[in-house]
Amino acid sequence: MTSSTSLATAAFVQTEGDIRLVVDGRVLFCHSERNPAIFVGQGEADISMQRGNFSIRDYVQERLALRHAWLDQAAARLDLRAWVDGPVLLSLSLQVQDNVLRLVPQNVDAGINRLWLRVPAAADEHVWGCGEQMSYFDLRGRNFPLWTSEPGVGRDKSTWLTLQADNEANAGGDYYHTNYPQPTYISSQRYCLHAVTTAYADFDFRHQQFHELQFWAVPKAFEFLLADDFVQLVSQVSSHFGRQPRLPEWVMKGAILGLKNGREHAQARLDDALDQGVAVSALWCEDWEGLRITSFGKRLFWDWQWNSTRYPDHAAWVASLEAQDIRFMGYVNPYLCNDGPLFQEAQEAGYLATRVEGGTYLVDFGEFLCGVVDFTLPAAAQWFEERILRREMLDKGLSGWMADFGEYLPIDLKLAGDADPMLEHNAWPVRWAEVNARAIANAGKTGDALFFMRAGYSGVQRHCPLLWAGDQSVDFSRHDGLQTVICGALSSGLLGNAYHHSDIGGYTSLYDNCRTGELFQRWAEMAAFTPVMRTHEGNRPDQNLQFWQDADTYAHFARMTRLYVGLRPYLQSLVDEAEASGLPLQRPLFLHYEQDPETYSIQDQYLYGKDLLVAPVHAEGQREWTAYLPRGDQWQHLWSGERYAGGQRVTVAAPLGQPPVFIRVGSRWQATFETLADLAL
Amino acid sequence: MTSSTSLATAAFVQTEGDIRLVVDGRVLFCHSERNPAIFVGQGEADISMQRGNFSIRDYVQERLALRHAWLDQAAARLDLRAWVDGPVLLSLSLQVQDNVLRLVPQNVDAGINRLWLRVPAAADEHVWGCGEQMSYFDLRGRNFPLWTSEPGVGRDKSTWLTLQADNEANAGGDYYHTNYPQPTYISSQRYCLHAVTTAYADFDFRHQQFHELQFWAVPKAFEFLLADDFVQLVSQVSSHFGRQPRLPEWVMKGAILGLKNGREHAQARLDDALDQGVAVSALWCEDWEGLRITSFGKRLFWDWQWNSTRYPDHAAWVASLEAQDIRFMGYVNPYLCNDGPLFQEAQEAGYLATRVEGGTYLVDFGEFLCGVVDFTLPAAAQWFEERILRREMLDKGLSGWMADFGEYLPIDLKLAGDADPMLEHNAWPVRWAEVNARAIANAGKTGDALFFMRAGYSGVQRHCPLLWAGDQSVDFSRHDGLQTVICGALSSGLLGNAYHHSDIGGYTSLYDNCRTGELFQRWAEMAAFTPVMRTHEGNRPDQNLQFWQDADTYAHFARMTRLYVGLRPYLQSLVDEAEASGLPLQRPLFLHYEQDPETYSIQDQYLYGKDLLVAPVHAEGQREWTAYLPRGDQWQHLWSGERYAGGQRVTVAAPLGQPPVFIRVGSRWQATFETLADLAL
Repeated sequence: MTSSTSLATAAFVQTEGDIRLVVDGRVLFCHSERNPAIFVGQGEADISMQRGNFSIRDYVQERLALRHAWLDQAAARLDLRAWVDGPVLLSLSLQVQDNVLRLVPQNVDAGINRLWLRVPAAADEHVWGCGEQMSYFDLRGRNFPLWTSEPGVGRDKSTWLTLQADNEANAGGDYYHTNYPQPTYISSQRYCLHAVTTAYADFDFRHQQFHELQFWAVPKAFEFLLADDFVQLVSQVSSHFGRQPRLPEWVMKGAILGLKNGREHAQARLDDALDQGVAVSALWCEDWEGLRITSFGKRLFWDWQWNSTRYPDHAAWVASLEAQDIRFMGYVNPYLCNDGPLFQEAQEAGYLATRVEGGTYLVDFGEFLCGVVDFTLPAAAQWFEERILRREMLDKGLSGWMADFGEYLPIDLKLAGDADPMLEHNAWPVRWAEVNARAIANAGKTGDALFFMRAGYSGVQRHCPLLWAGDQSVDFSRHDGLQTVICGALSSGLLGNAYHHSDIGGYTSLYDNCRTGELFQRWAEMAAFTPVMRTHEGNRPDQNLQFWQDADTYAHFARMTRLYVGLRPYLQSLVDEAEASGLPLQRPLFLHYEQDPETYSIQDQYLYGKDLLVAPVHAEGQREWTAYLPRGDQWQHLWSGERYAGGQRVTVAAPLGQPPVFIRVGSRWQATFETLADLAL
Repeated sequence: MTSSTSLATAAFVQTEGDIRLVVDGRVLFCHSERNPAIFVGQGEADISMQRGNFSIRDYVQERLALRHAWLDQAAARLDLRAWVDGPVLLSLSLQVQDNVLRLVPQNVDAGINRLWLRVPAAADEHVWGCGEQMSYFDLRGRNFPLWTSEPGVGRDKSTWLTLQADNEANAGGDYYHTNYPQPTYISSQRYCLHAVTTAYADFDFRHQQFHELQFWAVPKAFEFLLADDFVQLVSQVSSHFGRQPRLPEWVMKGAILGLKNGREHAQARLDDALDQGVAVSALWCEDWEGLRITSFGKRLFWDWQWNSTRYPDHAAWVASLEAQDIRFMGYVNPYLCNDGPLFQEAQEAGYLATRVEGGTYLVDFGEFLCGVVDFTLPAAAQWFEERILRREMLDKGLSGWMADFGEYLPIDLKLAGDADPMLEHNAWPVRWAEVNARAIANAGKTGDALFFMRAGYSGVQRHCPLLWAGDQSVDFSRHDGLQTVICGALSSGLLGNAYHHSDIGGYTSLYDNCRTGELFQRWAEMAAFTPVMRTHEGNRPDQNLQFWQDADTYAHFARMTRLYVGLRPYLQSLVDEAEASGLPLQRPLFLHYEQDPETYSIQDQYLYGKDLLVAPVHAEGQREWTAYLPRGDQWQHLWSGERYAGGQRVTVAAPLGQPPVFIRVGSRWQATFETLADLAL
């Protein structure tokens, strides 16, 4: 681990040619008149939103290179000017505290609303992170706008599906769109850079010599974490953003069944699933609060109170589930529909964001309008925690919920205390996570009640106990299908999100793109090797295959839940590890094999803990699969028992039901793992 | 007309707040520290090309506002600095000569390779021009990159056709892609601004207060032409860029039949067409030089010599056509295929552009490779003129040709004298036009031999006698179909291109998009009211309807050629007018009705001369059509004889064969026009 000494003595060093900041061989900052490190300027943003899909354009009026630097060695401060005799437009102070090196902008010229920082890069450098990235794990060679939003449907401008979504509502998305961006990356040079800001940012890793980080407000600080190896670095990152609570024990007992058709349906599905040998931990009923019928179909009724029509005798029912050791989970989001009583209550108390010109700001969600609870107002946040999450949900027996949305905050509303929506937009998922976490904490249920979110931003780690990968399309597509979930787990995992999972079988079915049994089975196979297995009926349950509708899929799913339960002791050990060190459960191969450069860009395989390598089949019609086994260990194929030396690509049989998984030979869990194949029969 | 006096006394005027240049009430330049007129900087372009389809990205490293201006009143020069005590980064001198006001950049800092000029704009201002624009006539509200290229297939990112073309070869295009861009616009404030440069440019008309013109090299000058009305302004513009030669008389005798299947096919089609009552002026046989069979189908053999296999006994045949008063036309482009003898000849003489690392630069056109004749080398241009255009074409009896391409010049080749391909790219169409014009002039055939081009740039006017609208898709689509041809004629016409025409029935048939009889008929109806009627078999003749394959279409086409011939006296008068005043034959309505603001943005109707208003039916399945009739005149419907007051939208019957055309009541051609309806029976 990088000694605090080397950080403590870190300093800008001026030579003839440039001014540098070098720590343990890593050039973190380099400035010269010819190649300035900082550019500042003014821009005018042009932003529009359609249901969480943003169109963002910037008109950069000025971009000045701060070529002229004057170093105050004693103050560890650089004063930066655009021209020799001009005013200082920005200073940069070097500060070290708690193993974090900070470059802190000061004396910032008032006219500046754009800043570009160039961080020295090596030609062969890899970078990862930037939140939960769904398309590319290794970020080098591309730029990543960082603005929480809908990730898009299709997310690939070359596909007809994406084009149709774009034409309908600018909803197609692109490779960088994500519910959870974060201005933080990890470099293969073994440092992490985090920008302390919630402003719109764009991290550009396309240049050979430098990374150029763009911000639409001057960040409070640029923070650098350093370590000698990736395991230590990731652990430090987790500590920096806040350790997550433990995954509840009850979750590990089986799959969470996602259902949304009332109590009778839920009970029938549960009974049947148990009969079929499915291990079940909970029922997750999105429609616990009731439905709204629109011309688009069934939607949920966004007023967060138990609906006794759809779920009668709730207390008795929840008790009967508990007697079967089955938990009950619900759904909530930060909006309140304006035809529900909670909206009235919030409006009367002044808890809803308003329009600039006055009056409650209403968001159109398609034939219904919603108010936005203003979480910048402590009383409003507290009301949501106590009145809704506590009284209507936890106290009514809910053991958790999907805490949906968080990434839609419009930028044209008025918040309490005149908080700037352009700065609050990215902060919103964290505020939303905090509201949920606090409600659970105040009920004394941290580590027991479980909520899961798709939206995120810097700091969501400390509040949100479980990410879910959002709304994949029900397919194997490159940018919106099964494989994107792996990329999302790996990138978010490096930044301190230890727990990740996804909707088994995907969610979004549009334009006749429907879920197949094979897709569901491949997804379930992968999910068995993640912290949480949870199904979802999808956005169009009636047009898409449900696991109980097809005997093969049902049996396969049951086997995979048994396999998941069989992994429970190992999963518990990973939870211990996450608690102790902040390491994610799903890990990129290079985390433990950093001497093997082949591993650095792999994004469709992962280590599950240190001892299992998982290479999910993410293409249709494949019955064998090729995986890379990292150098330095021997690997035993879970199903055949065959052993392979690391440092090679191997092809194994991969029929449905036998996901390509390899045991690290020498693992202390080898015996446990070897029982798995039988459990899955 | 703006008196030369007011131009002669034009001067920068400094007030407390700003420095202005105002001529006859038009604010042509306005600068203040707060709102600077000029920004300069450095950018790094990233450009790639696939067969004329460019992908262009710019990384702007610096953009400095030149806030600090010092006016040397005596020298009529502004010195501009980025900061008060900094160096002069650019001066701007005001010069007036020959009725042109010029702002001439001088003392330009060597580091500058980007310049942005802000021209004051009025909120309700309209702008037109920028070359031959196919999607938008009124340019306000959009930006227009100006770089000659393929216009794209579909040109509409919301269509499946465009996406397929994009996926295949980045060939889908967008609204601003054009074979003929030009950094020149006409403002509704009755001035024309022309930037003297061939650098990549982007004219941005999206701002309320100013137009922002971007250049990737500092222009030699910004030229302003002013006039009191649009007719005078357009006439001045034509004089400025060079008047075109007269349209040859022989063209007006009927349609030019586009054929490409050898002599027998050509003769048979001609005989039959004449039998069917089609008025024919010429045969245009693209395949006069022979074919090449590739896996994509039949391509032309790009070695520009008469092919006696496909067209035997050429002298006798051309003579026999001449006896029938039918001309023969061919095809040529600026490339030479490397398996033809002319390539060898050019290569040996050193007339071909080379690779930077040496050796002939070869362009891949799909299973064949071509050399690029280096027109920056006077000897090479002369060789092309004399050896090919004169000896192989004019001397062999060709009366004209399509001078194809001109917009593909790669930017990574080496030209003679180290000419910069980034600056030569936009210049290339004009060099190509000049080679063609000079060959014809040296043969004493100017005004008799006729070539037509799709590519263009500033100055093409003085060389190219006829534009053709390029390769529309064979459909009615908004951005690549029939109606785009009108937009192309109007925008290019305002900039001094008096003659415009298009492939009747369109050209590009891809992805099962095929020509219908209705499309051909609607296109022919329009073409009858343009200077030249010419058919094209299209890129896939066998899969697309040819006029002789359908009796209705054949008869309709014959009628339209008779109507065209019936218009001959009027057309001759328009040719006289073009020669005298430079007015285009197809004119936007506002050119003669500038007091009627309704006319300013109309782009799917035109005045044909002053006395006919043409509103082509450009949608499928329509049998009536609504047109706007400009205020101030009465209009008589060509077919019904019904008269309408101007200043209103009227709906008329528009069956196939009766294109919506209106006669200006009081026209001296009224009697001629009134015979047209009979001719078209």
